Amino acid sequence: MAELFSAVVLTLFHEMFPGPLGHSLAGKALEDGVWNLKAVDIRGFAKDRHRTVDDSPFGGGAGMVMRPDVLDDAISASYPNQGPLIYFTPRGATLTQQRVKALAAEKTITLICGRFEGVDQRVLEARGVEEISLGDFVLSGGELAALTLLDAVVRLLPGVVGRGESLEDESFETGLLEYPHYTRPDPWRDMNVPEVLKSGHHANVAAWRRAQAEAVTQERRPDLWARYQARQTPKT
Amino acid sequence: MAELFSAVVLTLFHEMFPGPLGHSLAGKALEDGVWNLKAVDIRGFAKDRHRTVDDSPFGGGAGMVMRPDVLDDAISASYPNQGPLIYFTPRGATLTQQRVKALAAEKTITLICGRFEGVDQRVLEARGVEEISLGDFVLSGGELAALTLLDAVVRLLPGVVGRGESLEDESFETGLLEYPHYTRPDPWRDMNVPEVLKSGHHANVAAWRRAQAEAVTQERRPDLWARYQARQTPKT
Repeated sequence: MAELFSAVVLTLFHEMFPGPLGHSLAGKALEDGVWNLKAVDIRGFAKDRHRTVDDSPFGGGAGMVMRPDVLDDAISASYPNQGPLIYFTPRGATLTQQRVKALAAEKTITLICGRFEGVDQRVLEARGVEEISLGDFVLSGGELAALTLLDAVVRLLPGVVGRGESLEDESFETGLLEYPHYTRPDPWRDMNVPEVLKSGHHANVAAWRRAQAEAVTQERRPDLWARYQARQTPKT
Repeated sequence: MAELFSAVVLTLFHEMFPGPLGHSLAGKALEDGVWNLKAVDIRGFAKDRHRTVDDSPFGGGAGMVMRPDVLDDAISASYPNQGPLIYFTPRGATLTQQRVKALAAEKTITLICGRFEGVDQRVLEARGVEEISLGDFVLSGGELAALTLLDAVVRLLPGVVGRGESLEDESFETGLLEYPHYTRPDPWRDMNVPEVLKSGHHANVAAWRRAQAEAVTQERRPDLWARYQARQTPKT
């Protein structure tokens, strides 16, 4: 089977890959050749015998900055000159399921993982790198962001999530958070499964789930709720 | 040295842990006993000889749901009855650096990783579980969310990030995204490091960085920018 999707990761910690992606759904798909993963050690492109990849920041301040020349050489050697070239930074655009879906339609994505304070701005500009943030929190480097993004992308590749699973009802697909789930045993302790879910009445189940999804979205995520409402109400 | 911080992770894939957290900053801190990590296999609490942990959802639909009785027994055996008990789901509150900082001040945090469609709602309610979402995207399970959260938390533990690094200037600490970084060589290709950063004039460097941080926040994150401005302008 021809590989559907390739990921190239530039990192100072190639031993972190595939790591968690070697197990479960992503690991099975990796084994089956649905996708492949190449981790490139940025340190291999250092210019000196100490294999230095960073230096102190101009303008002073704590921390070290990744050198543009070293990273650029790593990109030259690894980037296939097609597909997204992504750097993970809290300065980037916040990752969304929409972007994840678009990435899953690519042949190759290349992910740059920073460490230290960050990377020299000039290489990001020279390469037209796309900056992505996993969320409004700070990680010790881009590696966990890369692993997380790949987990989200790989599960969308054809055949990775089996027919028994659903990609359709899940959160963000409808613009709403997902409804709550219930399974056996029923009752569990003194808690019953909602009657409607046991009624066998498909339309009522669907209506209940929709109402639950709307309620949890409205309560927990006013931002998503506002967008959802704007879409539901056609402008007159 | 007494451990400062303990993490307990309930998962169906305990072999994913510590995974990437066994390397770099978090791995060094784990080795040094600054924190510890215990991964508990939820499947060990299954009731039958097939070690079943999931069942089909009431109300129908694709996918399987984790049984409340199995998960609850796993919690009973693992949760130290103090500290946050967190379940990762897109339905949860979006993780922020503020929450990460609060979690780093705890003695123990317990993280529940779902798989399949999700877990039975009743166990979340019975246990008063805190629901957290890494962001508006869908993962194959909670494991990468747990690893990512722990990476963010562990770097804030005392002594993990060395004195040479900075926790103060980084994104979200000031309510702004971070300013750009530059290091040697200068020039690199035809691109120069901004003159002000080489001036040695600390006040000018600080002013330039602040202006850059404000500009990138305004351009890329109108939501953060609005909050930042609201804080800067005292109400009259």
